[in-house]
Amino acid sequence: MSENDIMKLLQPVAEPKHEGDSLDPADWDKFLGHCIAELRQVTRHLSSVRNRPAWQPVPGDVKQAIEEDLPLEPQGAEGVCKDIRSNILPYLLGNTHPRFFGWVHGSGTAGGLIADLYAAAMNANLGGREHAPVYVERTVIDWCKRIFAFPETSSGLLVSGTSMANAVAVAVARNHHCPVDVREEGLTLLSKTMVGYTSTESHCSVAKAFELLGLGRKQLRKIPVNRNFQIDLEALQTQVARDREAGFQPFCVVGTAGTVNCAAIDDLQELATICDREELWLHVDGAFGAMAILSDEFRGDLAGIERADSLAFDFHKWIHVGYDAGCVLVRNAEAHRSAFNTTEDYLAVAQGAAAGAPWFCEFGPELSRGFRALKVWFTIKEHGLNRLGAKISDNCRLARFLGDLVDKHPNLENLVRVSLNIVCFRYRIPALSAAELDSLNDELILLLQESGVAVPSRTRINNQVAIRVNLTNHRTTESDIRILVEAIDEIAPQALSRVVQGFEQSQDYLPDRSSA
Amino acid sequence: MSENDIMKLLQPVAEPKHEGDSLDPADWDKFLGHCIAELRQVTRHLSSVRNRPAWQPVPGDVKQAIEEDLPLEPQGAEGVCKDIRSNILPYLLGNTHPRFFGWVHGSGTAGGLIADLYAAAMNANLGGREHAPVYVERTVIDWCKRIFAFPETSSGLLVSGTSMANAVAVAVARNHHCPVDVREEGLTLLSKTMVGYTSTESHCSVAKAFELLGLGRKQLRKIPVNRNFQIDLEALQTQVARDREAGFQPFCVVGTAGTVNCAAIDDLQELATICDREELWLHVDGAFGAMAILSDEFRGDLAGIERADSLAFDFHKWIHVGYDAGCVLVRNAEAHRSAFNTTEDYLAVAQGAAAGAPWFCEFGPELSRGFRALKVWFTIKEHGLNRLGAKISDNCRLARFLGDLVDKHPNLENLVRVSLNIVCFRYRIPALSAAELDSLNDELILLLQESGVAVPSRTRINNQVAIRVNLTNHRTTESDIRILVEAIDEIAPQALSRVVQGFEQSQDYLPDRSSA
Repeated sequence: MSENDIMKLLQPVAEPKHEGDSLDPADWDKFLGHCIAELRQVTRHLSSVRNRPAWQPVPGDVKQAIEEDLPLEPQGAEGVCKDIRSNILPYLLGNTHPRFFGWVHGSGTAGGLIADLYAAAMNANLGGREHAPVYVERTVIDWCKRIFAFPETSSGLLVSGTSMANAVAVAVARNHHCPVDVREEGLTLLSKTMVGYTSTESHCSVAKAFELLGLGRKQLRKIPVNRNFQIDLEALQTQVARDREAGFQPFCVVGTAGTVNCAAIDDLQELATICDREELWLHVDGAFGAMAILSDEFRGDLAGIERADSLAFDFHKWIHVGYDAGCVLVRNAEAHRSAFNTTEDYLAVAQGAAAGAPWFCEFGPELSRGFRALKVWFTIKEHGLNRLGAKISDNCRLARFLGDLVDKHPNLENLVRVSLNIVCFRYRIPALSAAELDSLNDELILLLQESGVAVPSRTRINNQVAIRVNLTNHRTTESDIRILVEAIDEIAPQALSRVVQGFEQSQDYLPDRSSA
Repeated sequence: MSENDIMKLLQPVAEPKHEGDSLDPADWDKFLGHCIAELRQVTRHLSSVRNRPAWQPVPGDVKQAIEEDLPLEPQGAEGVCKDIRSNILPYLLGNTHPRFFGWVHGSGTAGGLIADLYAAAMNANLGGREHAPVYVERTVIDWCKRIFAFPETSSGLLVSGTSMANAVAVAVARNHHCPVDVREEGLTLLSKTMVGYTSTESHCSVAKAFELLGLGRKQLRKIPVNRNFQIDLEALQTQVARDREAGFQPFCVVGTAGTVNCAAIDDLQELATICDREELWLHVDGAFGAMAILSDEFRGDLAGIERADSLAFDFHKWIHVGYDAGCVLVRNAEAHRSAFNTTEDYLAVAQGAAAGAPWFCEFGPELSRGFRALKVWFTIKEHGLNRLGAKISDNCRLARFLGDLVDKHPNLENLVRVSLNIVCFRYRIPALSAAELDSLNDELILLLQESGVAVPSRTRINNQVAIRVNLTNHRTTESDIRILVEAIDEIAPQALSRVVQGFEQSQDYLPDRSSA
């Protein structure tokens, strides 16, 4: 077929005549005009984030408006956008707001708008095949290998987040260490039960991975932590020895780089040495903490991470890529691929659009995979890793700043030494009982959230309710930290009166109940 | 805290002074201007899709440009966009193009740009908690229950696609039917091996789910199909009886609504009856085919789908939501939740921002979950289900149109009766051997793709290479189908000469090889 023939065929076909023939806009200029109007709204929303409440409840009538009946007839894009602006945009969780301190959520970037705009227009499926988006994902994975000093020969996959990354990694470890072909045979006929190890502070997704994969939560031994909330290395080794004696097959250890409660980092260097000696797979859950490697100040705390067999972490937390975007790296690429491949021959290269082997779907459970790599690639290129690392250092500086304010405050106390970016503290009034103090801090958290001033979250540290402030937000400044402490001071009397009334009422009711 | 006090605290804080203090744009007006410029590019890309090749290879220098070194310093959003336009945008797989017929890819919509723009600005995490996006996802799931006549009390979850949805559904079925608590104990100590059933035509993700979940691929019995490529109901029942006798525990059947090869739909009504009688979980993989329920013409073919225990399907295929977006529905919501929940008490409602129970993370393996519900909600509202259903009917009409052109063509033959939206045919020259015919059709597919005129895919039907044309594209018209057939006619001589030369050369080489 000559070039001329091809060009002839490439001549645009006459557009369909009646509007119903395509879902495309009848008038592209009008469509562009509408998009620009929405873009103005969206940009204003982002640039004015400081002037809104950090969080507010979703009103009942808004919920009802969202829960509309099945849309059979077209409402048009303009109508739908109006609904978004009225019913969704004002009632977000608040993680883009500088005083959102709840849980470990990233805050996103403005540039992310542009990345997602392009991704939406391309509508790429990254399951596999031969197209440029695949090379973007490979590049992002190569960058991650460099960041964490993993060998060039290792493999990786972008996933929704660390929960999924942990599941993929434990699946690879399971299959690699299992004496039978798990994919073919399953686990039912194993003569020895496979067991893994993690600390009591590890994230619930590690246990969920064991459940999902048919290993069973009971087979994930929860090892106690030391006073820095790191896995107790002695206890780990004792448990491994005990399990071997009892006829179990130890196969993996899941270390944590940044526990969810207080950002503790396990001693990864020692874990790697133990795993080498015991021939165990070392997986590291570095959901947010792993990215601290970008900060000069904290890189040393992660020493040993480069010795892990697999590593899970998120882009949507501490480097502010939009939700969702996480990654798993696996040192042994062939072990990774052989846990998920569906074609036998790695090198049986198809041609044309079906080329591009190995496909990403051979490294995880998903075949349909959106182009989340673009927003990761975009964020890293737009800002550069040095700037992203500096923001991580800055978040940790603010955490220490808050820790100091707490230390100096007559009614506040830190419940754990500030590690990285998380501060767990509480309001303390000497006259109150332990139960009353818990209630007081619960009320404080709730009232803070309801005020819209700030969104901390709640956890328990040594069995005491803690106000937990997590700093993974590039918009947060010292002023925001000061506003948080001021708001606590202003809200404390109201919280206290609720608690005292609550306890008085419960006293009042006690006689009634016992006589009932 | 009085309203006045709150408002005082809500006063905007002075912006950070030096630029490094936030990742936000230093000048929002300038940022908006840049966004508008990119929006023009993106819109032009979409509106001119007909004037570009459907696919073209990624040149080597473009791959090299993408695979750049670790970006340490900021490149700025404008520079990154330039890279996207030069190196990514021209080299896509082509699924937005009206003559992309390869595999089952959706083509997306222009409105999807706006939905993703808002989603990027909101940066919501749909794992759980109390915010409007959660109500949007619940609404989308409620709509799906209505569409498939599932009970209001059933549950659902948006996932990346049907591969993940199948894994979630089989996990729920496994846990529900297992005599022990799988989550706690794992599968290793089971006395009876659990087995499932699906047809030989089912998608590879069903077997992958069995592998991932520790059940083992061998425990998924592949039941033969009848001449319409539907699961053979007699063979299924025989195998179930045989397995029970042999001491296995049958637990689920995975039916298919729209096989990937030729869009066959299993007899779901009969499957449901068999599963009722045998007390087996019926899961239906309806990746693209389930959405044919929106077409008046094909609704009847899916009768019985409403009796399934679980159903998996995609939004990004036949209703043109952008990648990725799929869904799993589960009839027994409590079985669904109890396969993934991490909190004991369903009704232990937290307050404030932590409310919103039950959280979506209790219905699947993911905790971090982007706002993919918005683009689904947007597409369904913008276009309405009736129009989306009409486009499905139209795709099927075009499939029959192509089937007729093939029937009338002296050198083309249909390899299977056209079902729904897939046409499998081949070029036929009576003088050629079976092996030569396979090569000829392989060459035709490759040359078509390389020409940029059209992207069909390749499959084997009854052990013959087939040109597979899938129609899940709202932009495709009759003219596009005609252009495909014309291109085949024009390309055929070149393909034939390659095949003949190839076979001659392989003859020539044989003596050399045997003497080596």
